[in-house]
Amino acid sequence: MKVLAGLTVVPLGVGVSLSAYVAACERILSEAGLCPQLHANGTNVEGEWDAIFAALKQCHETLHQMGAPRVTTTLQVGTRTDRDQTLEDKIRSVESKLG
Amino acid sequence: MKVLAGLTVVPLGVGVSLSAYVAACERILSEAGLCPQLHANGTNVEGEWDAIFAALKQCHETLHQMGAPRVTTTLQVGTRTDRDQTLEDKIRSVESKLG
Amino acid sequence: MKVLAGLTVVPLGVGVSLSAYVAACERILSEAGLCPQLHANGTNVEGEWDAIFAALKQCHETLHQMGAPRVTTTLQVGTRTDRDQTLEDKIRSVESKLG
Amino acid sequence: MKVLAGLTVVPLGVGVSLSAYVAACERILSEAGLCPQLHANGTNVEGEWDAIFAALKQCHETLHQMGAPRVTTTLQVGTRTDRDQTLEDKIRSVESKLG
Repeated sequence: MKVLAGLTVVPLGVGVSLSAYVAACERILSEAGLCPQLHANGTNVEGEWDAIFAALKQCHETLHQMGAPRVTTTLQVGTRTDRDQTLEDKIRSVESKLG
Repeated sequence: MKVLAGLTVVPLGVGVSLSAYVAACERILSEAGLCPQLHANGTNVEGEWDAIFAALKQCHETLHQMGAPRVTTTLQVGTRTDRDQTLEDKIRSVESKLG
Repeated sequence: MKVLAGLTVVPLGVGVSLSAYVAACERILSEAGLCPQLHANGTNVEGEWDAIFAALKQCHETLHQMGAPRVTTTLQVGTRTDRDQTLEDKIRSVESKLG
Repeated sequence: MKVLAGLTVVPLGVGVSLSAYVAACERILSEAGLCPQLHANGTNVEGEWDAIFAALKQCHETLHQMGAPRVTTTLQVGTRTDRDQTLEDKIRSVESKLG
């Protein structure tokens, strides 16, 4: 099952500068072949269900290894059966309506 | 890895009455042994990482089988290494401060 | 415009024990007459749009005053024009399908 | 109070093609001077607290007027007192760690 997802991974207990942790997740998502698209409040990915959640598990494990005692992720997960759609398709679809 | 999570599963393309779909997910989460706690905006669960995401996958598959062409889930996923914590612990912890 | 909402307020830069901060928000939401329903991953509220977002602003301001340099809230906000609905209605609606 | 936020507005009861509704929100957020940055799963904005939530209210009202009986928004709202930060700063901060 193909998934389009958006992730915001937040380590707690490591102060207020989180970018090194976010960068570690970007590398994991990229190496997993999930085509991460970084934006200001998170990262969008696309791929198979199992690949996405295996990579997210690795993100949590890695952030704990980097010293974060607590990790909280907010996720949006979308699947559809009516048609095949990519992250780029979703953006183009809105942009076409903005003329 | 133990996870405390909150899920809001939203089927799209099936009108505005979503409770039958939410109930189907409740049954799946319950049968998976994830102790679902229903609230007004979603469901909280606790369990092992793989069990939670296998059950969520089954929720998406089931809602598609029930006729939803598109399913979107918003998730909060928390893991911690500093101590073992249950869903009940989180509630009690806040309530003790409300005294 | 009547709103049913779910809030998860997370202060960053204050360690991993967040319950005192969550309790401070509960008090604000309660005093604002928003009928907060605490659950393991956040709080559900109901009320008028302006009242809800004024109270949430007060939550952020209060947590900053309590020492949190950074506050992140995840919110679900629902409005509907087809019928009047309370938080309790949403729960009952699912429970009736669970039989 | 300056806010960096991420919004995903989802109209329910209008089928599965949501891009016209998302585009209507983009216009509202843009006209409100909130510098919306569209991405595949939502839109990021920056601005003052009251301006952001007034614009979001207008999004809900507009989508109801366009025929959506139910509108659900998922939001991430961040404030910080330790330093001034823009949406672009957040992206650059992660990218600098990716080297």
